[in-house]
Amino acid sequence: MQIAMIGDRIVPLAELEPIYNDRGTYFGDGVYEVLRSYNGKIFALEEHLQRFARSLSEIEITGIDIEQVRWRVKKGFDATRIANARIYFHVTRGSAPRNHTWKADIRPNFFLTITELADSSEEKSRGIAVSTHPDWRWKRCDIKSLNLLPNILARQDAEKKGCSEAIFVDDAGLITEGAGSAFFAIIEGKLQTTPLKANILPSVTRKFVIEASRNISLEVVEKSLTPKQAADAEELFIAVTTKDIIPVVKFDCKVIGDGKPGKYTNLLMQEFRSFIL
Amino acid sequence: MQIAMIGDRIVPLAELEPIYNDRGTYFGDGVYEVLRSYNGKIFALEEHLQRFARSLSEIEITGIDIEQVRWRVKKGFDATRIANARIYFHVTRGSAPRNHTWKADIRPNFFLTITELADSSEEKSRGIAVSTHPDWRWKRCDIKSLNLLPNILARQDAEKKGCSEAIFVDDAGLITEGAGSAFFAIIEGKLQTTPLKANILPSVTRKFVIEASRNISLEVVEKSLTPKQAADAEELFIAVTTKDIIPVVKFDCKVIGDGKPGKYTNLLMQEFRSFIL
Repeated sequence: MQIAMIGDRIVPLAELEPIYNDRGTYFGDGVYEVLRSYNGKIFALEEHLQRFARSLSEIEITGIDIEQVRWRVKKGFDATRIANARIYFHVTRGSAPRNHTWKADIRPNFFLTITELADSSEEKSRGIAVSTHPDWRWKRCDIKSLNLLPNILARQDAEKKGCSEAIFVDDAGLITEGAGSAFFAIIEGKLQTTPLKANILPSVTRKFVIEASRNISLEVVEKSLTPKQAADAEELFIAVTTKDIIPVVKFDCKVIGDGKPGKYTNLLMQEFRSFIL
Repeated sequence: MQIAMIGDRIVPLAELEPIYNDRGTYFGDGVYEVLRSYNGKIFALEEHLQRFARSLSEIEITGIDIEQVRWRVKKGFDATRIANARIYFHVTRGSAPRNHTWKADIRPNFFLTITELADSSEEKSRGIAVSTHPDWRWKRCDIKSLNLLPNILARQDAEKKGCSEAIFVDDAGLITEGAGSAFFAIIEGKLQTTPLKANILPSVTRKFVIEASRNISLEVVEKSLTPKQAADAEELFIAVTTKDIIPVVKFDCKVIGDGKPGKYTNLLMQEFRSFIL
């Protein structure tokens, strides 16, 4: 008799619920998105759906209708009536007995949660501390996949150091991005950030930050930074869907500027609000 | 109201079953082992438990008693009465609402399956074809984690090419290992394989292959190979827990030797049997 065990409980394999055979758990074989609402309105849904479709395509998950995903997001959101919500969803390739390869007829699993966002106004007004961590991730970080072990290990390491985010540094000694955010510096009065390649996620918030930057006539330089350049920058901030712009006032124990959110960071936060209204 | 959606079904978040909040699915935050039995006897249990304990420790999953894992493996195996069984188990950090960092009191989830192994005698007597794939994996492949997306994508690519295994080639143009196996070549009458570093898994079967090699006075060289060197080798084979040694007779369309399992590969397969009895 073929069996499964969940903790100490033995279950005949034929009676195992499909969720236990989810390829999301066996292999991280799935992709996800996180989006948010501001005051009852979902922000940047099109951008997130577009990126999601690309992620699905890159790992060859087929049979997902993006219109249906849009409908589910809206249906779920309408059911919650949360003004400032965090909307998470993932699709895994499906449930099947564990085997590296998959069959063409496997049916994807869809899962979504909608929760209330914590208020981030204190982080926005005081700024956060970040610490660096070697970038141990795989070579296709442009795909928003469920393979996030390096991210959570780096984030936990940051937390141990009293920091709110980990900033990845690659083998060449260059900053790629944060464990769950895009990373920006103000250097000589210009906005600098990592260029989009296979080693970073095409962040939706990054796109809006760059747009905000242009709106306030702040020049944008897409060029990787070293940790030394970041530590010596005039200003630093991260960008993340759930909180948009968060000033960084400490980088690996080095205080940035006067230890308060910088002038341009404040201007960008203000400009970002115009996208939300 | 905070909610989850499973497909089209809305569930209040408070009523969601913990398995849906498994960090194994959200992040691939877990580690696993695969072992097998030969003729009713579990093979190399100690080696697998030792590696499992190391994997847990490397990603800081605490609260797992290895004696309890051993007991569960034996209990499950005794319940199945399968002579040639594939025993898979994983531990994830536990179930919690999705958040990168974890709390100290989170309780790990244990999951195991025991299934009947397919007969591999035909693969052993005829050999298999393999194809190369860029090694896109993370930098800690010495940890046997659930972050296996690059492995399954490579394996699927191999299947499309009519091959049974993908062989990873790193940025330096060197072979690391197979997507689910260790890789070996016979070159100038010596056994050559990748040295153990953070970029490959410390394979249990590899250890026994090296022991078998010494037993038949075959010199072992731990040095990485290029795909060119592999294609020109006298013999090739992979080593994997579920099938031990499998000859490779085709490497990226190039026939190896006379297209049949080689002399040393056959000797090693024979010697391997002495470990099983």
